[in-house]
Amino acid sequence: MGQPISSAALIAVDWGTSNMRARLLDAAGGVLAEAESEDGIARVEAGGHEAAFERLVGAWPRVPAIMAGMIGSRQGWREAAYLPCPAAVGDLAASVLRFDTASGRPVAIVPGIMVRSAARDGDVMRGEETQIVGMIDGEPDFSGVAILPGTHSKWVSIGAATVKDFQTFLTGEIFELLSQKSFLRHSVAAGDGDLTQSPDFALAVRRTAEEGLPFLSAIFSVRVRALLDNVDRADNLAYLSGLVIGGEIAAARAAGRFNDATTLRIVGSRSLGRAYARAFALLGVQAVGLDGNGLALAGLIHIARTIGLLPATVPGQAP
Amino acid sequence: MGQPISSAALIAVDWGTSNMRARLLDAAGGVLAEAESEDGIARVEAGGHEAAFERLVGAWPRVPAIMAGMIGSRQGWREAAYLPCPAAVGDLAASVLRFDTASGRPVAIVPGIMVRSAARDGDVMRGEETQIVGMIDGEPDFSGVAILPGTHSKWVSIGAATVKDFQTFLTGEIFELLSQKSFLRHSVAAGDGDLTQSPDFALAVRRTAEEGLPFLSAIFSVRVRALLDNVDRADNLAYLSGLVIGGEIAAARAAGRFNDATTLRIVGSRSLGRAYARAFALLGVQAVGLDGNGLALAGLIHIARTIGLLPATVPGQAP
Repeated sequence: MGQPISSAALIAVDWGTSNMRARLLDAAGGVLAEAESEDGIARVEAGGHEAAFERLVGAWPRVPAIMAGMIGSRQGWREAAYLPCPAAVGDLAASVLRFDTASGRPVAIVPGIMVRSAARDGDVMRGEETQIVGMIDGEPDFSGVAILPGTHSKWVSIGAATVKDFQTFLTGEIFELLSQKSFLRHSVAAGDGDLTQSPDFALAVRRTAEEGLPFLSAIFSVRVRALLDNVDRADNLAYLSGLVIGGEIAAARAAGRFNDATTLRIVGSRSLGRAYARAFALLGVQAVGLDGNGLALAGLIHIARTIGLLPATVPGQAP
Repeated sequence: MGQPISSAALIAVDWGTSNMRARLLDAAGGVLAEAESEDGIARVEAGGHEAAFERLVGAWPRVPAIMAGMIGSRQGWREAAYLPCPAAVGDLAASVLRFDTASGRPVAIVPGIMVRSAARDGDVMRGEETQIVGMIDGEPDFSGVAILPGTHSKWVSIGAATVKDFQTFLTGEIFELLSQKSFLRHSVAAGDGDLTQSPDFALAVRRTAEEGLPFLSAIFSVRVRALLDNVDRADNLAYLSGLVIGGEIAAARAAGRFNDATTLRIVGSRSLGRAYARAFALLGVQAVGLDGNGLALAGLIHIARTIGLLPATVPGQAP
C-alpha cells in the first residue's frame, strides 16, 4: 500500500462463510494495508483458524485483531454466543469474546444477536450487527429501520443506539434458487448486471408491493411471460428480481416492519443497495443507501475503541 | 393383466415431462391393460414420439389413442394450443388436436388452458385440465374450487362445467428447492414420509395461514429452530412442509381464490392430497379429497366419448 506500517495498532477482520477480509489499522482507525483470502469458515477445518489467519496477515506487525462474522459461530474459531434483543451497542462491546491465540496474539470476536419470540421462532444475525454499530457510530440518534439486503436480508429496528428487533427474509437465496436451480432458469438470462433499468423490474415491484400479487404465485408468471409473450430473458430476470424484492418489501410492510413514518436506511453492496433503493423509489418511499463494507469497518473500529483495543481519542500522528 | 384384449377400443395416455402412462380400454372405458415408461417428453427428441409410444404399447391392439399432458406442448409431439379461459368441458373436447401417426394410428391430444390477464401476466395449465374434466364428469353441477397440489399447484375456479379461472402457486418446487438445495437442507431431514402427523406441521400451517407470518421470512425460522432449539430434523422438515402449504393457502385466500362459502376439492396423489386435507382441517375448512390418477383417466374417457373415440353409451359386452 506504500504506507508506513510501523504505526500499526490493530487488524480488523470481516470473516464470513466464504471469505476473510483483513485491514491493518493505525491508532486513528486509518487503513494501512488490506488483504483478502477465500479461507471462509466453510473451508477451514476445526483447529485450523489460527493458521488460516496467519497465512493472510503473517507479514504484518503482530498487533491484536478484532473480528466479526461467522468466525464467531459454532462452526467458527470460537463461539461468541448470540446476544438477545434488545441489544445496545454498549452491550455488544461488553459481550465481545476475547482470548489469546496459541502464539499469543490477542483476539476479540464480536457476538451475533438473536431474537427470542414465541410468536415467530426467533431470529439470528451474525456480522450484520457490526454494520449496524458502524451506522450508529455515524448517526448516534438514528431511530428507524436499517435494511441489509443479501442472501438473508435483515430488517433491523433501531433506536437509542440499540437493536430493538429484527427479521430475516430469505430473498437473495430464493432469487438464486429460482433463477439458477428451478424450472424458471430456462425463462431468464444467466447474467445479472444492472437489472433495475428494465421497465419489467418496475412492473414486478409494483405488482407485488403495491397490488399485493402473492409471491408464491407471482413467480410462476416468469414462465408464463416466456411461454405466451416471448419476453426477453434479460427482461424476465429483471422481472424476477423485482418480484422477490417487491415481495420482500410487501411482506415486511405487512409484518409491521415499517410504515410511511419510518426512517429507512439501506446498508449493502453497491449493486444490491441500488436495486433496493430503486424499488423503494418506485413505491414513493424514501430510503437512504449506505455502503455496507465501510460500515462494517466503522463498526469494528467503534467496538475496538470501546473495549480499549484502539485509543478512544485519536493521538497526534507521527509525521 | 389376464383380461381378453380383443375388446380393446382405445388407449388413454397421460404423457408428462418425466414419464408416460398408458391404459388400454374397452368400449365401456374398462381398463384391460396398463403400461408405463420413463420416456417423458424431456427424454424424447423431436421426431421420436411415435417410436417412444410404440415401444410402450406396440404389443397391444392397434386402436386409436387419446393423450393429455406435456405431450401437447411446444416441446411435445405436436402442439395443442392453449384454450383461453373461460373454457367449458365442451370447448376442450371441441379443441382436441387430431392427427394420424406415420403408421396410420389416429391420435387425439387434449389442449391445455390459459388465462390471459393484464393484471397478473396470465397463467397456464396442461394435463390438469383433463383431471378437472374427470371431476366434472362425476359431479356435473360442481361449483367451487378444485386445488391440484404438486410441483406447480393449481387453484381452479369451476362452475357450469366450465373452468372459469385459475392460478398457479410454485409451492412444490419451492419446497424441493428449500429442502434439498438451500442452506436449510442442513436443518431438515432428507426423507419425507407422512409429515402431517408432526405437531410442527400443524404449528407451521397455523402460523402462516392463520397468523399471517410472511412466507419469505417464516422459512428462515427453519434454520433458527435448528440453531437455537435443536429441533429434530424430521420435525423441521414437517415444519417446512407446513410453512409452504400454509403459505400457499394464505396467499390463495388473500388473492380471493376462496372464502368461507367456497366448496373445495383437493385433486392429487394420496400423500400430497392428505397433507393439504390435513392443513385445511387444521384451519377448520372443509375440503374433500379426490384421487388425481382416477380423475385423469375419467377425463380422457369423457373427452373420448364426446369426440366419438368411444361410444357415448356402453354397448352390450360380449360374454
